[in-house]
Amino acid sequence: MRIDVLTLFPRMFEGPLTESILGKAIDKNLLDVHVSNFRDFSTNKHQQVDDYPYGGGAGMLLKVQPIHDGIKSIQEEAGHKKQRIILLDPAGKPFNQKLAEEFAEEEHLVFVCGHYEGYDERIRSLVTDEVSLGDYVLTGGELGAMTMIDATVRLLPEVLGNDESAKGDSHSTGLLEHPQYTRPADYEGMEVPHVLTNGNHKLIEEWQLKESLRRTLLRRPDMLESLEITPEMEKLLAEVKKEENL
Amino acid sequence: MRIDVLTLFPRMFEGPLTESILGKAIDKNLLDVHVSNFRDFSTNKHQQVDDYPYGGGAGMLLKVQPIHDGIKSIQEEAGHKKQRIILLDPAGKPFNQKLAEEFAEEEHLVFVCGHYEGYDERIRSLVTDEVSLGDYVLTGGELGAMTMIDATVRLLPEVLGNDESAKGDSHSTGLLEHPQYTRPADYEGMEVPHVLTNGNHKLIEEWQLKESLRRTLLRRPDMLESLEITPEMEKLLAEVKKEENL
Repeated sequence: MRIDVLTLFPRMFEGPLTESILGKAIDKNLLDVHVSNFRDFSTNKHQQVDDYPYGGGAGMLLKVQPIHDGIKSIQEEAGHKKQRIILLDPAGKPFNQKLAEEFAEEEHLVFVCGHYEGYDERIRSLVTDEVSLGDYVLTGGELGAMTMIDATVRLLPEVLGNDESAKGDSHSTGLLEHPQYTRPADYEGMEVPHVLTNGNHKLIEEWQLKESLRRTLLRRPDMLESLEITPEMEKLLAEVKKEENL
Repeated sequence: MRIDVLTLFPRMFEGPLTESILGKAIDKNLLDVHVSNFRDFSTNKHQQVDDYPYGGGAGMLLKVQPIHDGIKSIQEEAGHKKQRIILLDPAGKPFNQKLAEEFAEEEHLVFVCGHYEGYDERIRSLVTDEVSLGDYVLTGGELGAMTMIDATVRLLPEVLGNDESAKGDSHSTGLLEHPQYTRPADYEGMEVPHVLTNGNHKLIEEWQLKESLRRTLLRRPDMLESLEITPEMEKLLAEVKKEENL
């Protein structure tokens, strides 16, 4: 997969791209990442990338031209027929796991990051997707792009080793993950539940499913609405509701 | 404000902490950030931080001891009476703008970042908050911590200059931001709406409010439910619904 990022702060990507999963994927040649400063594409003699908004108002807006030319340059250089071009924007559709799975199927992703300022509306016509990381305000799109890249790249074949398996993670099964414990069995008086140490695998699996359901019911009941509930889950949910006086 | 981060990948924070808003806030002495590797607190002779889960299952779990001792060390060094200690976890409550505003009121934030692996359940008893960046799976908590730090720090007094004003941003008013335009008035045939160039400020403000309402209604109708609707907004919403055949 090829990933391009257009940003005014390319140095923000240095740590995240060299460390951890992204660095490993790049080292294994599973991923080719290019971070460009769209200021370099400005045709303005002062390399200006922003200007005052029509109609007045606080703040400056990113101009169409540098981003337009930055995208064109990437398209020409890459030579791919098709890019998914993603504008990081709080007014975009909220990012979620399904979108990460979609991005992971693409050959070439291009992320366009604004910073502080708004976009000239016509920039939206240059992209295929407008995506928001969540309902909070950030100073720029860079952290959003890094986060979406991380969520996407970990889904590519061969990127995660066996130890780093994605199976059972919260949000990938539709339930929050059940509580987990490792040694010591007693940490300052806090003990591991006995069911986990007595070796009955059927009981352990049932406990894990029940505690996944409990945690999801108590913390994120909205997630249960879109889940297919099996008869076993129904029985365990009934037990949990009784135990929690719900 | 003091911010501490406990992570196995401190180098991931290098770019984001030196560039942009965070770097500026640190330079202005508005912010004091310490990133520590909790492996340094492991009492295990191989500095191991993880172990196999009780009851079996794929993957390793982060042990209580290194994170426990890391938090204690930060508390002793800082000498503050009170910390907000935030565990980055997909099973936590979803991060949002209200939580960023709460964090911005604190004197000392501590972010605990896992990576790949799950947490020993007892780690949750060491923290004040369990927070998730969104409903997607990431390889670790680092990008979540950076994002929450960014959303929080930009709310601190004196961090944002006038040009970088937070006013009118999507999610800070409860509406998505209206379309905005800057020069040129015509970019490859795409023109700026005439209302913005004719100088009537009353008409411009009405157009901006109407287009904010339109964008929110079409993209994020859920946001309108929690909004206080004025009579003017009601009138404009009715116009928009008629225009959009809703």
